[in-house]
Amino acid sequence: MPQPIENAIPDVVILRLPLYVRALAQLHDSDTEVVSSHALGEKLQITPAQIRKDLSYFGRFGKQGRGYNVLYLLSELKSIMGLNQEWRAALIGMGRLGRAIISYPGFVREGFHIVAVFDADPALVGTEIDGVPVRNMAQLDRIISEQRIHIGIVAVPEEHAQAVVDQLVKCEVKGILNYAPISPQVPDGVWIRNIDPVLSLQTLTFHLKG
Amino acid sequence: MPQPIENAIPDVVILRLPLYVRALAQLHDSDTEVVSSHALGEKLQITPAQIRKDLSYFGRFGKQGRGYNVLYLLSELKSIMGLNQEWRAALIGMGRLGRAIISYPGFVREGFHIVAVFDADPALVGTEIDGVPVRNMAQLDRIISEQRIHIGIVAVPEEHAQAVVDQLVKCEVKGILNYAPISPQVPDGVWIRNIDPVLSLQTLTFHLKG
Repeated sequence: MPQPIENAIPDVVILRLPLYVRALAQLHDSDTEVVSSHALGEKLQITPAQIRKDLSYFGRFGKQGRGYNVLYLLSELKSIMGLNQEWRAALIGMGRLGRAIISYPGFVREGFHIVAVFDADPALVGTEIDGVPVRNMAQLDRIISEQRIHIGIVAVPEEHAQAVVDQLVKCEVKGILNYAPISPQVPDGVWIRNIDPVLSLQTLTFHLKG
Repeated sequence: MPQPIENAIPDVVILRLPLYVRALAQLHDSDTEVVSSHALGEKLQITPAQIRKDLSYFGRFGKQGRGYNVLYLLSELKSIMGLNQEWRAALIGMGRLGRAIISYPGFVREGFHIVAVFDADPALVGTEIDGVPVRNMAQLDRIISEQRIHIGIVAVPEEHAQAVVDQLVKCEVKGILNYAPISPQVPDGVWIRNIDPVLSLQTLTFHLKG
């Protein structure tokens, strides 16, 4: 398999890869061994041509007219996406949102571990929440380096979100998950994803309007 | 403009519409009056052909070679998506997650109002959180009908999420935003969106892996 040139892969393609992984995992769970791009596309509401084009960025996974081997494609995609390893994250902001995030059961079972939490409030710093000690922001740089943290999760009020993102970038964190309802700016070489429930609501109202 | 046949529009197209609306709103804010599908596509990392095809489901918005009038397209899309009206939502689950959701500042300014909250815990029912009285689930049907609520926001533990979704469906709620880390099933004619931060993390790790 040729090595991908990662810079050449459009971000929209990357954004679709987890959908492929989930669909393939479901197929594998139901003992499906081979899937065509047509059947995969039906499942995902993506055209077969788009699926073939997306996958072609990463190598050749199927033989013409034979479909994809589900287990092989699943395992290759997980490896390509870095999902075969555990990831360590720092959570910044331990208000209501941060407390909800730290008790969210979806992260750990997918290999994402929140190993350090931070807050700017002196009343919180030094306390423990769910057994994790809350640290102050002055410790961010040291802890990120010591704990080999690769991901920052931002759960601070929106007026502080850009400043916290800037701090994470300074600490050489390259991946950021932002829950504040703004779109913080990051330099090249840093990737940020925004959790945006309003976008989801706006795709519901199309169906609900009278 | 011809009337769209809504059932014929693929859901993936609907999912892209809010992105178009945001990009157009930004262009309008920066005094851009006309935009080509090429320039809009650059902004959104979507091919110009895809943009033209997506928009063609809803009518003809541009003239060949002239680009789109930003304000007109923005206003038409908002109307198509039902974003020119206020929407009333019920929130079910007032644990950590529900409390974070009710204080999330992003909803109200986009026209989404949480007007009633519910919980199964007798210790919470009857109390007020942020000035909103917590009701018990037995009142769900009556309140949804009386308050003309169109959207249900599900913030209960995952083991209860499907049952709560079923209850909302029984109360004729047609739009559901689910925060639990599962994908509840809904019948035809009901639309559900899942808030899934793991999907976002999985698109980061591609860039982070060594």
